[in-house]
Amino acid sequence: MNIPAKTFKYYWEDFPVGKVREFGGVTLTAEAIIDFARQFDPQPFHLSEEGGKNSLFGGLCASGWHTCALAMRMMCDAYLLETASLGSPGLENIRWLKPVRPGDTLHVRTVVLEARPLDSKPHVGLVRNRWEMLNQNNEEVMQMEGYGMFLRRDVPKADDIRA
Amino acid sequence: MNIPAKTFKYYWEDFPVGKVREFGGVTLTAEAIIDFARQFDPQPFHLSEEGGKNSLFGGLCASGWHTCALAMRMMCDAYLLETASLGSPGLENIRWLKPVRPGDTLHVRTVVLEARPLDSKPHVGLVRNRWEMLNQNNEEVMQMEGYGMFLRRDVPKADDIRA
Repeated sequence: MNIPAKTFKYYWEDFPVGKVREFGGVTLTAEAIIDFARQFDPQPFHLSEEGGKNSLFGGLCASGWHTCALAMRMMCDAYLLETASLGSPGLENIRWLKPVRPGDTLHVRTVVLEARPLDSKPHVGLVRNRWEMLNQNNEEVMQMEGYGMFLRRDVPKADDIRA
Repeated sequence: MNIPAKTFKYYWEDFPVGKVREFGGVTLTAEAIIDFARQFDPQPFHLSEEGGKNSLFGGLCASGWHTCALAMRMMCDAYLLETASLGSPGLENIRWLKPVRPGDTLHVRTVVLEARPLDSKPHVGLVRNRWEMLNQNNEEVMQMEGYGMFLRRDVPKADDIRA
């Protein structure tokens, strides 16, 4: 039986070096900050305004893991769910540059730093993206470099060739 | 008025280079994996067993952000909430090494790689930790290097000295 492969809107070839994407626009509530923190990062400055006032942050702020997870969600909504994504082997250089506060509206800018086919799997390409998360004042609140693996357009798997 | 500073169990001095801590022991459910993914990383292989079967992962697996957030929670429960923590400026070299599956029991091993007082704030010390997350078969599923800032024990702020 020959099952046709699912087709996607975007493949590795749609991530050339220098390609910029901007997306997002989510406004964060205190409730969302506290809900995440209760589950994953219950430090006082992520749990209440008062806990934040007694910290270097001067008020309630989001867990850094929360801001990263929000950036991930924004990328999913913007294009990743329409992309032939194979997952990510990892990330580099996460920097939490400014506190993320209740009411902040966050968006993300990605730029492709590196794009190459995998030697071991020629039908797969690796992409290294810089992510920058900005708030409504265009202040950069988070930065990281992430790797993603994507299928290449029209490059069959070696298995398929042999079959 | 002289408000006594809150005292903590652990300060920067409790994180000397080479110090190892092991903690955790949380068993992940399919429901927890799917709940996180619906909020933050709704890729098919994080949303259902069937979506995972059609991927490189061969079955449902947790978002990498979920595994990182779980490691954070385990660190909070093990010692961070009793530590004079000032938050983290960032992380390096996250590697998602193996899929994390429903039913996996996860624990974390940290080792201090670097510990030094901040030149700019002598009452604060920086610690660089390697984190390794292991499953019930002692397979390493995630690795990263995180920075943390902690108050030093008995080193007053410069402001306090001048006051």
